[in-house]
Amino acid sequence: MERLEQQVTFVRELDKLKRVQRQTWLTDTSRKENSAEHSWHIAVMAMVLAEYAPGTELDVGRVIQMLLLHDIVEIDAGDTFCYDRAAVAHQADQEERAAERLFGLLPPDLADRFRGLWEEFEARETPESLLANSLDRLQPILNNFHSGGKSWLANGIRRGQVRDRNRIVADGAPDLWAYIEDLLQRAVDKGMLKD
Amino acid sequence: MERLEQQVTFVRELDKLKRVQRQTWLTDTSRKENSAEHSWHIAVMAMVLAEYAPGTELDVGRVIQMLLLHDIVEIDAGDTFCYDRAAVAHQADQEERAAERLFGLLPPDLADRFRGLWEEFEARETPESLLANSLDRLQPILNNFHSGGKSWLANGIRRGQVRDRNRIVADGAPDLWAYIEDLLQRAVDKGMLKD
Repeated sequence: MERLEQQVTFVRELDKLKRVQRQTWLTDTSRKENSAEHSWHIAVMAMVLAEYAPGTELDVGRVIQMLLLHDIVEIDAGDTFCYDRAAVAHQADQEERAAERLFGLLPPDLADRFRGLWEEFEARETPESLLANSLDRLQPILNNFHSGGKSWLANGIRRGQVRDRNRIVADGAPDLWAYIEDLLQRAVDKGMLKD
Repeated sequence: MERLEQQVTFVRELDKLKRVQRQTWLTDTSRKENSAEHSWHIAVMAMVLAEYAPGTELDVGRVIQMLLLHDIVEIDAGDTFCYDRAAVAHQADQEERAAERLFGLLPPDLADRFRGLWEEFEARETPESLLANSLDRLQPILNNFHSGGKSWLANGIRRGQVRDRNRIVADGAPDLWAYIEDLLQRAVDKGMLKD
């Protein structure tokens, strides 16, 4: 039963991701969301929006698995606010060590597979990882817009920053990028986002 | 763009599942968990523990998709505490109406597919749904045990109730059932659970 004990140890550890707070608010602005529920949200989004990836050979199952795992390193490394440049610079090292420890709790075959999915997500090269990254960007934009721009306003974010940060969506899901561009215009018009 | 608007409306609605509170505590007992982060937890558990389903023909991707969707009806119907018999009796009708409304937000092809996955989960007939239901039962047992039996003690739960309620795991994942039986014995020994 040593294998099962290793697996359960990892499953227990996962609980900690529910305590990692992100900068994004729930749409009712009652509180900020955490990385576990965010991961669930975008995994369902993959089921809903996969058709917007260009090309036809997409493995949606792998997109979902990548999204389920993509933030687990935050259990050790914490969530980095994407517009905080100093924090982003330190992020890669911390996440690398976190991946080593966390996936290392698993039996080697699962550790290798999970780490491979995480690295694929981070490398942003395959169609699956481009879509996964696009959904990871789209969700906070939707939540920011539908919470009245709460996080954008609190941090003085400009439209250009949102565009620069999220341009990967133009590759991962061009129609969703067009949707975002329209949403950002409406956000500027409503005073939620600086131009 | 009407199709995309329908899809985004559903994606916005999903945010509400983050506000549905369950009876299970986080393992650090800082708060109760919500149904969105619970759904994430068990979807990752499917990636970790799928090998414990009997037989070899299991479609793990479908297990994951079922688990991602299985609690969405709680956005309208709320979470029902599994040991509250009166509430459980009313649950089916409420969830049926919730499924109608929530999946009905989607374009018909997606509505049919998602509703089919939800019904498969609820029917507990296919190997995929037996594993999915088993993981949905295992996670709160693990969290209860590792939070010192907080929810069991608060509600005066006995070992026999946990066994009766969760016996589906014996079909869905026999080795995980053996693990649960051992955990329940340890919980009784530690005074977390009445015998």
